[in-house]
Amino acid sequence: MKISVIGTGTVGRTITSKLIDLDHEVMLGTRNVREKLASMVKDGYGNPPFSEWYKSNPKVKLGSFAESAAFGELVVNATLGGNSLDALKLAGSKNLSGKIIIDISNPLDFSKGMPPSLIPGLSNTNSLGEEIQKTFPEARVVKTLNTMWCGLMVNPGLIGNGDHTNYISGNDAGARAEVKKFLKTFGWKDDNLIELGDITGARAAEGVLLLWLRLLGTLNSGAFNLKLVR
Amino acid sequence: MKISVIGTGTVGRTITSKLIDLDHEVMLGTRNVREKLASMVKDGYGNPPFSEWYKSNPKVKLGSFAESAAFGELVVNATLGGNSLDALKLAGSKNLSGKIIIDISNPLDFSKGMPPSLIPGLSNTNSLGEEIQKTFPEARVVKTLNTMWCGLMVNPGLIGNGDHTNYISGNDAGARAEVKKFLKTFGWKDDNLIELGDITGARAAEGVLLLWLRLLGTLNSGAFNLKLVR
Repeated sequence: MKISVIGTGTVGRTITSKLIDLDHEVMLGTRNVREKLASMVKDGYGNPPFSEWYKSNPKVKLGSFAESAAFGELVVNATLGGNSLDALKLAGSKNLSGKIIIDISNPLDFSKGMPPSLIPGLSNTNSLGEEIQKTFPEARVVKTLNTMWCGLMVNPGLIGNGDHTNYISGNDAGARAEVKKFLKTFGWKDDNLIELGDITGARAAEGVLLLWLRLLGTLNSGAFNLKLVR
Repeated sequence: MKISVIGTGTVGRTITSKLIDLDHEVMLGTRNVREKLASMVKDGYGNPPFSEWYKSNPKVKLGSFAESAAFGELVVNATLGGNSLDALKLAGSKNLSGKIIIDISNPLDFSKGMPPSLIPGLSNTNSLGEEIQKTFPEARVVKTLNTMWCGLMVNPGLIGNGDHTNYISGNDAGARAEVKKFLKTFGWKDDNLIELGDITGARAAEGVLLLWLRLLGTLNSGAFNLKLVR
């Protein structure tokens, strides 16, 4: 399958590597290809500059946001939440129309100190997932995977035998079902994929970040998740 | 132990019954004792009027907010979050001074439809737990138990062999330790009591309600909780 991954940070790279392992064709989308390849800046987590990572992953294609979105039959939004709407607008509504957008992003607000909070207008009674769906009504937005460290997104079996929960929200039941099938190729078990209904479920999934960030600070490791027990 | 439970709704009644079973003396606090006993109104969940419940629980004492708080060596805030600060002000800072307040409440906003959202000024970058601590600086506020159905608060073993998570936040390490000891008498295992640090951890714990309410709607039962897996 041809897949567009928008965003070249840790999440975008991790998802892309997994997709390549699964024999998909991936084009990463970035704001400015020439600048991205020239930059020798480490990302905020101390990862190597993108250009180094790109050299050691020769199967990965790189394009502008629009080129990537046009390439993909499926689009993954792995940008920082505060940049997501801008990036997707540059990707272009025409290139997103009819496609599933798997939205992994979180509307984090770093302006009020650490740990970040949520961007006020995109939390509680709204969400980034909803705002993306409203901005691109022809796309089929499915919020998922945003409640955990990216290492677990693509390898849930790393902890607890893979028995922990990943949430699915989206307006289109067909798109939710397709995304569940897709997530199973990452190792997710059906029982651990919990549907939260339409895209307003993103309020709940993004709201988890307040707890997630707090736990990250307490546990000093991202290798944790929450499991629904009933 | 003499315990004050502020709030006569489902949560207050459930906690009180458990405390009586554990041989504590409990005085429930209410805004107006005479009116509360005269009222034949069912609560919002279809539970019997308080007066009926009170008749069938003869060991329970009933007093004003202030009488209850003065009586208790420990205070449990089980009011609706939107009423908590008012109720505790009526309880009186003198009656709360030096005491642990176990804060179970959630700042739910029912004004924007169902499921409720969080009261904007008490979410994301603030919380009800913090606001209570700021309002009563001489009390030792510990946020806990607010992330689940009250049936599980007092009987965690109802599901998953009791292996699911309850969070603890509070500024005073001694108070957090005392509350953990107290929670163990309800059946909570040490491994499942996860500390989130100071009272700002209440932002995380109260933020869980967005997910909790969504899951409640999806699962059609309150007998669920989340377990930290690592």
